Amino acid sequence: MKYRYFSIGEYPQSGTPERGLFTLNEADLPELDNGQVRVRNTWLSVDPYMRGRMSGVATYIDPFALDAPLEGAAVGEVIASRDERFQEGDRVVHMGGWRDIAQLPGDALQPLPDIDVPPQAFLGVLGMPGMTAWTGLNVIASMNDGDNVLVSAAGGAVGSLAVQLAKAKGGTVVGIAGTQAKRDWLEARGVVAVDYRDKDAATLTADLQAACPEGFDVYYENVGGVCLEAALNTLRVGARIAVCGMIAHYNDETPVPGPSNLAMMVIRRARMQGFIVFEHWERYPHFLEEVGPLVSAGRIDYEETIVEGLENTPDAFLDLFQGANQGKMLVRL
Amino acid sequence: MKYRYFSIGEYPQSGTPERGLFTLNEADLPELDNGQVRVRNTWLSVDPYMRGRMSGVATYIDPFALDAPLEGAAVGEVIASRDERFQEGDRVVHMGGWRDIAQLPGDALQPLPDIDVPPQAFLGVLGMPGMTAWTGLNVIASMNDGDNVLVSAAGGAVGSLAVQLAKAKGGTVVGIAGTQAKRDWLEARGVVAVDYRDKDAATLTADLQAACPEGFDVYYENVGGVCLEAALNTLRVGARIAVCGMIAHYNDETPVPGPSNLAMMVIRRARMQGFIVFEHWERYPHFLEEVGPLVSAGRIDYEETIVEGLENTPDAFLDLFQGANQGKMLVRL
Repeated sequence: MKYRYFSIGEYPQSGTPERGLFTLNEADLPELDNGQVRVRNTWLSVDPYMRGRMSGVATYIDPFALDAPLEGAAVGEVIASRDERFQEGDRVVHMGGWRDIAQLPGDALQPLPDIDVPPQAFLGVLGMPGMTAWTGLNVIASMNDGDNVLVSAAGGAVGSLAVQLAKAKGGTVVGIAGTQAKRDWLEARGVVAVDYRDKDAATLTADLQAACPEGFDVYYENVGGVCLEAALNTLRVGARIAVCGMIAHYNDETPVPGPSNLAMMVIRRARMQGFIVFEHWERYPHFLEEVGPLVSAGRIDYEETIVEGLENTPDAFLDLFQGANQGKMLVRL
Repeated sequence: MKYRYFSIGEYPQSGTPERGLFTLNEADLPELDNGQVRVRNTWLSVDPYMRGRMSGVATYIDPFALDAPLEGAAVGEVIASRDERFQEGDRVVHMGGWRDIAQLPGDALQPLPDIDVPPQAFLGVLGMPGMTAWTGLNVIASMNDGDNVLVSAAGGAVGSLAVQLAKAKGGTVVGIAGTQAKRDWLEARGVVAVDYRDKDAATLTADLQAACPEGFDVYYENVGGVCLEAALNTLRVGARIAVCGMIAHYNDETPVPGPSNLAMMVIRRARMQGFIVFEHWERYPHFLEEVGPLVSAGRIDYEETIVEGLENTPDAFLDLFQGANQGKMLVRL
């Protein structure tokens, strides 16, 4: 049986990767070994963190292997199994993405949780991005009832859940987003939406102060750059900043200076903490238990931006850095 | 009775203050009110944080009043008292510095703790700077046995205690200091000393990596600038950064960009926290109990840079920003 997969042949050291970096290959799948399962993927996830795996440097996760199938979260259906835990027709989630058919050891598969949502929700609002939002607010930033919360990249897969979780705590929630459609979506959910495009830190600071004159107890940092600098100016005493990524810098050609106002960390006695959601995965069942029913009942909304067809996976990935996705960026096969 | 005090008549908005900012005044002390105490100061403290009080902006502490006696920690001897808790000859510590005679409510005075050290030690190693070092390492950075610890401004009043407290925990301790005399002092105490002057972040990073190839569990941040950028490159996973000030930036004319590598906070899952020692003052008795006997027994060393005479207090203060002090900068009256 043949399968198709994307690979890269070199590591782009800096800058936005070119479309030509990605090669679509076709190859024969080997015979199914004992313990292996064959999955026909139906949904692929593309996520900003994947840029880090293309740098050739081990950070918190190994780089992608060159000339081998790229990896990423995916949902699919079992089409053959030599692992007794999985039968044909089972729906599973796993990391064998960027390909149409994945052949993996059974240990690498998770059955889809028994929650009444579309299967691709486990790649977004109930998957890694959702878990990232929940962990950042609750575990890293110690969010309390009534906290005023600022979320950057608030229209993205992580941010759009973060604002809703924050909103449920009762304080003022402000979301930074770069398109009118994202801001409309946020405002419709009671979030004060602020644009950042073409603003310097002073202007964005003033806009954030207007949106929440009391200042913020929690800042959910996804972006870096001007958003971080403005956020630092608007912290309340004792504020907590959760940092899960800085998408503004993933493709920097050269090092870009950081915020000139880090001294605000002292003035406001603030705490900033970086985290990697995979290191908190033992809480995933707790997260599903808390957020799953809210999503299933429609009390938490989520958006998807869907690209059709395996061959367009690199385009979906590259579009993330243009902010082209509203909510979770997905590829449907 | 006359007294002499320093005042400022305006707030320098940016840049290093000019010597001419400071005016030495002479005035009559009012009659001693009921509850007041008159103290002849013998030692005055000058500290980097005072620059913030000259900016005219309330940060974590009110600005200095214009044309009124400046304030700061001081040690002195009671020469008259209308508070029954204080008798002539009592030695006290208080915040009525920058003057030769202070007249204050008794509530504003603390008797010198009963520890066998010179009185000015309560302005340095056993005073606010010492308490800042201890709080930053133990409370903010959660220092553990065996942690590798990096301290910037390691030859200063705070840093020189921080390296010794860290050294007692058994890990590798590296101190950044800008003069050979400071580095010799550090090396004599088992601290690996690294110069930062005229180095860019890449060079300083390489030097820190050579000094401690395993990387650092704790970074005690006093400085900002190139030191912070290099330190971020040398953190171990789960590192903690305590930030009590950024002296490199106190006199900036214009905003200076921050480190370009804040993404290391995510890659190393690091925590950075600003703090103000006055908010942790309830632990001061605990600090004295732990560190006082070590100082008294000579097991913790400290240096002093002594300037003679009230009239030279502004010079002592301004010299702090040139790194002219080894250990605690003091004025002896």
